[in-house]
Amino acid sequence: MPTNSQVAFKRELLNTDNNQTTTATLQDNLVNLVDLALLLKQAHWNVVGTNFRSLHLQLDAIIETVRAGSDDIAERIATLGIAADGRSQTVARNSHLHEYPEGMLSVEETVQHVADELHATVTELRNAIQRLGELDPISEDLCIGICASLEKHLWMLQAQEKSN
Amino acid sequence: MPTNSQVAFKRELLNTDNNQTTTATLQDNLVNLVDLALLLKQAHWNVVGTNFRSLHLQLDAIIETVRAGSDDIAERIATLGIAADGRSQTVARNSHLHEYPEGMLSVEETVQHVADELHATVTELRNAIQRLGELDPISEDLCIGICASLEKHLWMLQAQEKSN
Amino acid sequence: MPTNSQVAFKRELLNTDNNQTTTATLQDNLVNLVDLALLLKQAHWNVVGTNFRSLHLQLDAIIETVRAGSDDIAERIATLGIAADGRSQTVARNSHLHEYPEGMLSVEETVQHVADELHATVTELRNAIQRLGELDPISEDLCIGICASLEKHLWMLQAQEKSN
Amino acid sequence: MPTNSQVAFKRELLNTDNNQTTTATLQDNLVNLVDLALLLKQAHWNVVGTNFRSLHLQLDAIIETVRAGSDDIAERIATLGIAADGRSQTVARNSHLHEYPEGMLSVEETVQHVADELHATVTELRNAIQRLGELDPISEDLCIGICASLEKHLWMLQAQEKSN
Amino acid sequence: MPTNSQVAFKRELLNTDNNQTTTATLQDNLVNLVDLALLLKQAHWNVVGTNFRSLHLQLDAIIETVRAGSDDIAERIATLGIAADGRSQTVARNSHLHEYPEGMLSVEETVQHVADELHATVTELRNAIQRLGELDPISEDLCIGICASLEKHLWMLQAQEKSN
Amino acid sequence: MPTNSQVAFKRELLNTDNNQTTTATLQDNLVNLVDLALLLKQAHWNVVGTNFRSLHLQLDAIIETVRAGSDDIAERIATLGIAADGRSQTVARNSHLHEYPEGMLSVEETVQHVADELHATVTELRNAIQRLGELDPISEDLCIGICASLEKHLWMLQAQEKSN
Amino acid sequence: MPTNSQVAFKRELLNTDNNQTTTATLQDNLVNLVDLALLLKQAHWNVVGTNFRSLHLQLDAIIETVRAGSDDIAERIATLGIAADGRSQTVARNSHLHEYPEGMLSVEETVQHVADELHATVTELRNAIQRLGELDPISEDLCIGICASLEKHLWMLQAQEKSN
Amino acid sequence: MPTNSQVAFKRELLNTDNNQTTTATLQDNLVNLVDLALLLKQAHWNVVGTNFRSLHLQLDAIIETVRAGSDDIAERIATLGIAADGRSQTVARNSHLHEYPEGMLSVEETVQHVADELHATVTELRNAIQRLGELDPISEDLCIGICASLEKHLWMLQAQEKSN
Amino acid sequence: MPTNSQVAFKRELLNTDNNQTTTATLQDNLVNLVDLALLLKQAHWNVVGTNFRSLHLQLDAIIETVRAGSDDIAERIATLGIAADGRSQTVARNSHLHEYPEGMLSVEETVQHVADELHATVTELRNAIQRLGELDPISEDLCIGICASLEKHLWMLQAQEKSN
Amino acid sequence: MPTNSQVAFKRELLNTDNNQTTTATLQDNLVNLVDLALLLKQAHWNVVGTNFRSLHLQLDAIIETVRAGSDDIAERIATLGIAADGRSQTVARNSHLHEYPEGMLSVEETVQHVADELHATVTELRNAIQRLGELDPISEDLCIGICASLEKHLWMLQAQEKSN
Amino acid sequence: MPTNSQVAFKRELLNTDNNQTTTATLQDNLVNLVDLALLLKQAHWNVVGTNFRSLHLQLDAIIETVRAGSDDIAERIATLGIAADGRSQTVARNSHLHEYPEGMLSVEETVQHVADELHATVTELRNAIQRLGELDPISEDLCIGICASLEKHLWMLQAQEKSN
Amino acid sequence: MPTNSQVAFKRELLNTDNNQTTTATLQDNLVNLVDLALLLKQAHWNVVGTNFRSLHLQLDAIIETVRAGSDDIAERIATLGIAADGRSQTVARNSHLHEYPEGMLSVEETVQHVADELHATVTELRNAIQRLGELDPISEDLCIGICASLEKHLWMLQAQEKSN
Repeated sequence: MPTNSQVAFKRELLNTDNNQTTTATLQDNLVNLVDLALLLKQAHWNVVGTNFRSLHLQLDAIIETVRAGSDDIAERIATLGIAADGRSQTVARNSHLHEYPEGMLSVEETVQHVADELHATVTELRNAIQRLGELDPISEDLCIGICASLEKHLWMLQAQEKSN
Repeated sequence: MPTNSQVAFKRELLNTDNNQTTTATLQDNLVNLVDLALLLKQAHWNVVGTNFRSLHLQLDAIIETVRAGSDDIAERIATLGIAADGRSQTVARNSHLHEYPEGMLSVEETVQHVADELHATVTELRNAIQRLGELDPISEDLCIGICASLEKHLWMLQAQEKSN
Repeated sequence: MPTNSQVAFKRELLNTDNNQTTTATLQDNLVNLVDLALLLKQAHWNVVGTNFRSLHLQLDAIIETVRAGSDDIAERIATLGIAADGRSQTVARNSHLHEYPEGMLSVEETVQHVADELHATVTELRNAIQRLGELDPISEDLCIGICASLEKHLWMLQAQEKSN
Repeated sequence: MPTNSQVAFKRELLNTDNNQTTTATLQDNLVNLVDLALLLKQAHWNVVGTNFRSLHLQLDAIIETVRAGSDDIAERIATLGIAADGRSQTVARNSHLHEYPEGMLSVEETVQHVADELHATVTELRNAIQRLGELDPISEDLCIGICASLEKHLWMLQAQEKSN
Repeated sequence: MPTNSQVAFKRELLNTDNNQTTTATLQDNLVNLVDLALLLKQAHWNVVGTNFRSLHLQLDAIIETVRAGSDDIAERIATLGIAADGRSQTVARNSHLHEYPEGMLSVEETVQHVADELHATVTELRNAIQRLGELDPISEDLCIGICASLEKHLWMLQAQEKSN
Repeated sequence: MPTNSQVAFKRELLNTDNNQTTTATLQDNLVNLVDLALLLKQAHWNVVGTNFRSLHLQLDAIIETVRAGSDDIAERIATLGIAADGRSQTVARNSHLHEYPEGMLSVEETVQHVADELHATVTELRNAIQRLGELDPISEDLCIGICASLEKHLWMLQAQEKSN
Repeated sequence: MPTNSQVAFKRELLNTDNNQTTTATLQDNLVNLVDLALLLKQAHWNVVGTNFRSLHLQLDAIIETVRAGSDDIAERIATLGIAADGRSQTVARNSHLHEYPEGMLSVEETVQHVADELHATVTELRNAIQRLGELDPISEDLCIGICASLEKHLWMLQAQEKSN
Repeated sequence: MPTNSQVAFKRELLNTDNNQTTTATLQDNLVNLVDLALLLKQAHWNVVGTNFRSLHLQLDAIIETVRAGSDDIAERIATLGIAADGRSQTVARNSHLHEYPEGMLSVEETVQHVADELHATVTELRNAIQRLGELDPISEDLCIGICASLEKHLWMLQAQEKSN
Repeated sequence: MPTNSQVAFKRELLNTDNNQTTTATLQDNLVNLVDLALLLKQAHWNVVGTNFRSLHLQLDAIIETVRAGSDDIAERIATLGIAADGRSQTVARNSHLHEYPEGMLSVEETVQHVADELHATVTELRNAIQRLGELDPISEDLCIGICASLEKHLWMLQAQEKSN
Repeated sequence: MPTNSQVAFKRELLNTDNNQTTTATLQDNLVNLVDLALLLKQAHWNVVGTNFRSLHLQLDAIIETVRAGSDDIAERIATLGIAADGRSQTVARNSHLHEYPEGMLSVEETVQHVADELHATVTELRNAIQRLGELDPISEDLCIGICASLEKHLWMLQAQEKSN
Repeated sequence: MPTNSQVAFKRELLNTDNNQTTTATLQDNLVNLVDLALLLKQAHWNVVGTNFRSLHLQLDAIIETVRAGSDDIAERIATLGIAADGRSQTVARNSHLHEYPEGMLSVEETVQHVADELHATVTELRNAIQRLGELDPISEDLCIGICASLEKHLWMLQAQEKSN
Repeated sequence: MPTNSQVAFKRELLNTDNNQTTTATLQDNLVNLVDLALLLKQAHWNVVGTNFRSLHLQLDAIIETVRAGSDDIAERIATLGIAADGRSQTVARNSHLHEYPEGMLSVEETVQHVADELHATVTELRNAIQRLGELDPISEDLCIGICASLEKHLWMLQAQEKSN
């Protein structure tokens, strides 16, 4: 078995350097996305208040997007011959997101916390897109697609923060 | 906002003691199930070998069951007025499962590791079922349903370990 | 034709005493559930206020659960050879629920009234479950399933009552 | 909150007199339809005899039509700014249908009772259609659609009464 | 090619006078409905505030109804041998609706503006229904159907304006 | 068994005179519609020429509408307690449509023949609608619905006859 | 345009003699099937008696099979370059089926008449199958498929005639 | 390979004694259910009489339930590490059901024979449920679910035996 | 009631001799197919080894084909007026297949046993096809269709036996 | 409320300059796409001639693409914190497309006009893609996707202009 | 591994001589069908002219039939234990179809070329059907089914060649 | 008609030089993809060995991707006004893939051959992506999308080559 950082397959897609930088970049964002999905479920379960049901459903829609994104990125890493790492210990240690508050949260607090972490995820993805442009157009295009969906979800959260 | 261990709603379903023991029991298993789903995804991405594709698909079928189970348990905790906790930090700290090995694993190793952790999860669920019978028949029935599905998946994994 | 309290079929499932207590218990809850469905439709039509549409849709989801539950209980009574009774006159006379207020109600009032009656229905179902455990495990399991769904709906109503 | 007979919304669709007569006419038929649905369920559960299954299924098809009709009429009343009233007490008190016999009924008796009450419902709807023609073409058209479906169901019941 | 006001087909459905009045009436309402669909999209994109998502979805449901209505009316005009006119210039010039405010609007403002314009559209449709009754029952029935749906949407908007 | 012109059922919907005129009117149009469906199938099988496939598919779409219409009218006659008559001999004897030419026909000839017979069918339906308005609003509304669909199909045929 | 009996297309599938006998055989059965579909609809509309609904539905299932069969045969004739003839006048003149009785029929009479005509149709199809075996295996196989379905329907009718 | 009564897998779910009694209980009912499905098919093919079609369809609905039940029980036995045995020889030898009469049977005879055997199957399942409660709650819950469906089917058969 | 070997219906499809030989041939194969389905389920439950899951799923796909085939043959026998016999005792006594080994089997053993019995079934079906060609083309065509599917399944089993 | 050109949300995705140029570019193309959809509907209603139906359907397929495109662009503008403007007055004033001719148009004329305006829309989108490459890869990728679909539709229109 | 002409499996379906002739006949037609599918795609991409879209869609419908046919034939060859050969080099060398012209073709030219090659394919399939009748009824029936579909497609192409 | 290398349409999307280079690049990859689909079908039919069924299904999933890709590229070439060329002779002559071995192949050999040719196809696509970036962003994006899917399929093949 290859170690975690050796290319596992004999037919190469990228040269060694590009492959290492590309997969490291993807791995960083994988951890964020896995953590974001857990955080969104936490919010989904523990939100309370007048708008509870609408936000409860909206959060599940975002989770579907985030899970599809983390799966695509992990399988892209595997396609490039490297083992992806989305274990709970790795995620707890390496995620760039803030720990979500414990207990139940009001709708307003929930929207704010989730939007903040979604924005943080998007910001790192945008940095990744810039780096990947010269390394691997397939990975770049994959991240653009995920980022586009997350930014649209961010709009639909931010639009709720506007004072009426 | 109530703290993590206060009943949040004014209409009670169980008396205070039963409620506390029931939700604590459910919370323990919630953490295991969330961790199990992450572990299964890790296996799904990093398995290699002759039977790769068949196991790759099988793991996703198990993940679907596990995620539905963790969602049902978390929402049962919320129904009982307590905040569920499935955050990455909590899961990494409190899960009873072993850390999954890093890197790529062969089909045989993958089947063995996954079956071991699935068995551990099932064993704790069976203990919970015994305790819940006298506390809350709704929670007991919920855990029986989840356990039945997991044990069937366990069979379909164990059946692959038999030497041909 | 058999009278309302005679077992109609020649092949018995329970002995006479258990059958009588079981079907009487089920009949009590049937009346509550039929009334609850009418009450929820009344609420569905006459709610007004900022969150109107979200609650309007949520109420229809609860109605679907309640109607399926009353149908299952009535057919369980029939399976045990006794005529179920869900006629409007019987429901108006025997239901344990409070009369719903006439006219249009605000979202807050609607949530509170509906949650109260849902809680009353659940409380009687829980009592039935305790009694049925020794009489007929099939009827007990049926009531557990209905109760589980209603309690989840109760959570999703109560969560909206929390002050933001 | 407006009382039960005040127009709730500021943008009027009909003048006050037409609105009052229209919604009163619709309310009368709403009560009949809600009662008819309960009566059909009662028949659905308690019919016995050779043709049991065929009639059991047919009754559920009629119930679906009747429930859709009562929902449309109640929401039409609400659209016109008046609170609809379909509560069990109101239905038991104001319905024009006969009380359905208690206990189990043979297929022949069931067909006859159900056809009689369906005919009574249709007759009142036809009177309503005549009155509504000059008051509100939208409400008239709604009642014509419901009546057409009910009359077709009436045919499929009556056709079974013909001696073979 | 026929000009805009000549009947294009040799097989007539109405006499010349009825045809001219009928199609002119339909054309007036076509313009309103096309404009209403654009206005609703504008609202759909630019609403902000606590209830954003629920209203955002509701507006799309109304748009679907309005677009189906404008399509049916335009194809009815074509069926009667006259060219329908739904071009942007015609709509901007001839629509009876008010210009929607530019920029983002709060949920309350959005509901009010949309309900006002929906009410204006419905009022003209009701006038058309009266005129069409003697000219062409097919066109009258088409407009009744569209009007019924729009009035139901109007209810679901107005119900949100009620102070809680 | 009742003869062809006796009301078969004991619960009346219309008085005797209205019933006789209504069902006779419906029977006349039933024959036309059954014949039209056969004629359209004949055209569907025997059209040839450049636009063959597009017209072949279009004819099947019209047939679907015509068959649904004849079924609805026949079942309306039965609902009114009279036996409908759609037998081949009756149709061949009583239909008001022209005999379709034998052999294969060009696209142009097919469009012209089919449009002529569709127009003839529509013209008789329009006469029926006028008569039925005072006899039975349910039957009138049914014929309006069928006529609306047929006129739209007529447009889509006539639009193909325009010289380019 | 070719006349009714000339091969319309330049690319031949069968030699001239086989083509003429094959298409004449198919045309004979086409007429029977078109008439059978009309006869079944007549029965579907005018059956009365205890088992009405079950037979009413069963007849529609047979009609679907018969219509698909007549369509396939007519298009097979067209494929062989000959114009199929399913016009009402041709059907009334050339069908080998008996005229169906007018008025309403009891369930027993209906089953007997329909079974007789279905049997007559099947008998001619079986003769056709024997003749087609040496002329055109494609047409033979098509008729075997249609015949198999009709014979199964015949069973399900005949099984109802057995005295209980 | 393990013999028929050895636990095949290394990860145990129950202790040895409980496992042996549980799987033996399940195996007894497996044989009944496999035999019941064959018996129901036999009835499905060979019933004749006026109500043929309705019963023919009803029997297939019961078969679907019975097959799902036998599959679930067999796979539960396998999950517990024991080989299930549903071979024709085992079923013919060990089934507790009576041999179904040869030849065609009337609707009345069919209903009676099928209801008797369904009742016998249910009675043994109820005994199993009692025994399993202390051995394995997962297997108990599985049998309750199967028993509930079979008892409902039994009702729908018995309801047809009532004299009209 | 007719005995097992008398033609039950009055409208004949085949002459008496052909009917007897045809139905006896079909009955022989019916028994094989019913036994094969039981044998395949036995294999489905008790296979173990590396390729377990893939074979487990494949066996269910074959079972679906076999069950559809036995149903079609039994209903063909009934269509010809003879009672089909698929009871467990008849199957255990008359099937031409070997008894399947008890206990769990490896993937290799399972494939070999199943392929052997599938081949035996196909061989008898091929003999039946030859005999049926002169007796009843409908029954011949039915058996060809079943045989084609079974032979394709045989390929997909045999292909797995090839040494890699 | 922010004015039309102020960024509405506090979490920025682009710096101010890039944001202003990006949203202005998107707004220009939004207006074109909204106008194009209206223009295509106008063509859809008013085309006549031999190929009418085929083009009528094709235009609806293009409209679906164009509407999805305008919705995506408007919501992208909103995501970037700016109010999109698709009101009828704005579209009539700012669209770069030519006014579509009034009245009915032949198939040839329709294809030519629609292809010209589709080409104009595509040309501006291509310019936008070039500018957006350096400003915002998410917006660039969105426009590439819309442009790809429109160019494929353009092909399918142009292919019809080729002289035969 | 067996060579291309050796039977690969140990369980024989046909004797050696029949097997060799059968598979050789099927292989000849396999090559034609694979080539026909490529040729149809070429036509699908490069047709231009007034009827472009209708023919473009029609060609894809034919391709679906042809691909299903070639797949069935190749898998039939494999079922008989012989390796099928559908590689590009084999197809280019052995196909009996003419090379399709390069560049774009008008609708008329496309219809003519495609109909010619479809006719050539059908003619060889008809020869194969005659030969296979005595060798293998399963293969014969398979080819009849494919041929029937292709001949129907041929009709729908030829019908377009008729001068209007 | 234009020759193979002339732009067919009057409305240009790219300037002449870019158009020529873009379409030549796309044509090169079109030939590879068409050949790859044929090669994958060959592998799909002729693979044998323990893992046969899993690989058999996997190959069909890849074929679906490859065919969609070749269709999109050919239609992109057509969109740019050039005739695509995917004829069997062109593919056999110009494809860059190796000829697939004749006869049956083991699972291991099949995986290796298919992975090699998939890798070769991907490598040329990656070169095309680099060239197209400056010529036509629409074509570049199309190739990135196809390449991403193929590379993922390559992973799922390579993962099977890892020794267990």
